[in-house]
Amino acid sequence: MTLFDSIQKPTLLLDETAARANIRRMAAKARASGAAFRPHFKTHQSAEIGEWFRAEGVRAITVSSLDMALYFADHGWDDITLAFPANLRQLAGLNELAGRVRLGLLVESREAALGLSQGLSASVDIWLKVDSGLGRTGIHWQDAPAAAALAGFIRSLPHLRLRGLLTHAGNTYEAPGPAQAAALHRQATSRLDALRRELAGLGTEDLLVSVGDTPGCSAVESFAPADEIRPGNFVFYDAEQYLFGACGWEQVAVALACPVVALHPERGEAVIYGGAIHLSKDFYQQGGRRIYGLVCLPEGERWGAPLADAWVERVSQEHGVLRLAQADLARLQVGGLVCILPAHSCLTAQCMGRYLALDGRWVEMMGVR
Amino acid sequence: MTLFDSIQKPTLLLDETAARANIRRMAAKARASGAAFRPHFKTHQSAEIGEWFRAEGVRAITVSSLDMALYFADHGWDDITLAFPANLRQLAGLNELAGRVRLGLLVESREAALGLSQGLSASVDIWLKVDSGLGRTGIHWQDAPAAAALAGFIRSLPHLRLRGLLTHAGNTYEAPGPAQAAALHRQATSRLDALRRELAGLGTEDLLVSVGDTPGCSAVESFAPADEIRPGNFVFYDAEQYLFGACGWEQVAVALACPVVALHPERGEAVIYGGAIHLSKDFYQQGGRRIYGLVCLPEGERWGAPLADAWVERVSQEHGVLRLAQADLARLQVGGLVCILPAHSCLTAQCMGRYLALDGRWVEMMGVR
Repeated sequence: MTLFDSIQKPTLLLDETAARANIRRMAAKARASGAAFRPHFKTHQSAEIGEWFRAEGVRAITVSSLDMALYFADHGWDDITLAFPANLRQLAGLNELAGRVRLGLLVESREAALGLSQGLSASVDIWLKVDSGLGRTGIHWQDAPAAAALAGFIRSLPHLRLRGLLTHAGNTYEAPGPAQAAALHRQATSRLDALRRELAGLGTEDLLVSVGDTPGCSAVESFAPADEIRPGNFVFYDAEQYLFGACGWEQVAVALACPVVALHPERGEAVIYGGAIHLSKDFYQQGGRRIYGLVCLPEGERWGAPLADAWVERVSQEHGVLRLAQADLARLQVGGLVCILPAHSCLTAQCMGRYLALDGRWVEMMGVR
Repeated sequence: MTLFDSIQKPTLLLDETAARANIRRMAAKARASGAAFRPHFKTHQSAEIGEWFRAEGVRAITVSSLDMALYFADHGWDDITLAFPANLRQLAGLNELAGRVRLGLLVESREAALGLSQGLSASVDIWLKVDSGLGRTGIHWQDAPAAAALAGFIRSLPHLRLRGLLTHAGNTYEAPGPAQAAALHRQATSRLDALRRELAGLGTEDLLVSVGDTPGCSAVESFAPADEIRPGNFVFYDAEQYLFGACGWEQVAVALACPVVALHPERGEAVIYGGAIHLSKDFYQQGGRRIYGLVCLPEGERWGAPLADAWVERVSQEHGVLRLAQADLARLQVGGLVCILPAHSCLTAQCMGRYLALDGRWVEMMGVR
């Protein structure tokens, strides 16, 4: 029985070889740049995949929730940045964790700084969260007075060790291609570096600069003058990163195997068992198309190249509707399988909760709660 | 300590009283119409909430996956329609289940009918899946010859008991308001009824008609000439159904309690801990706005009315960005809570995996796998 013969329902396949190569490439680039590599583990959320990073020399990680930090702490990681504005409602858990590992937290307001300092009995690293252009959250990179005031306040408080400036240049995800993503990434790094120099002039010295986003980190040659990078998605990549040009299709390390349940050749569509609860409802907008995923066929023990001009056009809770050429439709059959490169692998992994490696072994993730 | 004091991270609150009233209202309307009520349990996916339906006389249910069917069979439900095109890769599980409960399956092709008949040793009910206008899947309602041929084929096969015609008029979700949703719902029912009469003329008699969609079932007064209705979302409703006019805000029975982590009064925004992995990435499009949820504040032991002109404007993996008026922003604080009415409660429930009832008790759902 082949791997594909065993698949009965939507199943997230994982190509370990491709994922390890993705990790190795980014780790090597960080080393060559002299930047610390603190990968974001929110993409994979798996202790086993964490070990693949450890094998490439990674010792420090980024996570997006306290639960995720606790999970990886339980799996031997002792230097963790929780890259999300500090949540004052989880002080007890943060304090417990700070007693066990070197914990980094993000602060962008006096309220958060004060709340942490008063609520923690263990010391934590603090990163000033800076908005370098995304406009989601953080102190604006041009507002040096506010940053200097907050930095001074943090340094005056017990238990808080100010480490540096941190940003997520998520606007690279909106760039039309790698060259523009590289430019946006360099711009974000330069903005943090400029803010660092301004703060030094205002008396706050010795700040590190931490950046991280997969499109930018994949596109640039060097990370200087950043001291640390925190990309996450690159471990798997996905249809968005492939279409955008951040990676080749062979580098996409996950695909959702989905049963075909109906064919509609009269309108060039097929229906799969695989919808919003498997892929998520995230899409990549390309021209007028919302692309929820790209369509590949099983080939031997892996999936083949994405079919040309074929995509997941709509998803409802359990259904996915594929749009594809007649010649490709003729290759499908009710009861057969397709492999979907998800638009956004982080959310698909979150939805699916575990991976089936190509050797037939399950790779577990942290639980949903 | 109040309910809200106990909340540390995104938590899906459930108002049992509102949900029970939603169930009671739909059950009463079905009874008055003489239609069987076979609610879709994919929205709540909870054995405990299933008992609230049982208390209103419900004995037959709809689900969207074999896993969900097995879960509810394990909780005492013995008349289950799996409203998804039959997945031939799960024959073994379907057969096992068909030996335990009265199982209904959807068929829209000869391949699926033949595969089921050959693979099953227990008998199942079969519903012809009809496309009444949504264009997702099923035999087109105007293609009576194809429907008649397939119906005849099914009746010639062992183990398959043809019960009727089934549709999901999901196009009601795109209607601008309740009147149009009611019209689309009646149109779908009429189309199935017309097809039923045509099939009777072609020799296939005694078919039932099953329809189901929350916007339509909420808007119409009577379900005739449908024999059965299968709405699901109405048990909770959500921001979409409220904005669309299918329900009042008090009828929305779930809200995601989210910590506030940052305030940006300069641009009328606040950032919450609560993003795509909690709410899902589904949105309700209203004018140029993508509304991922509506914003309420805690009031006593429940949430209050949605704030006027306030909504969740963007979500990333863990972040949500609220847009709201300055006066409302001034009521928020870092470390406080907001309650978000999700755009689409089915997907939010799926993401969250369990509910916190307003009396502080956890209401469990089936597991993710």
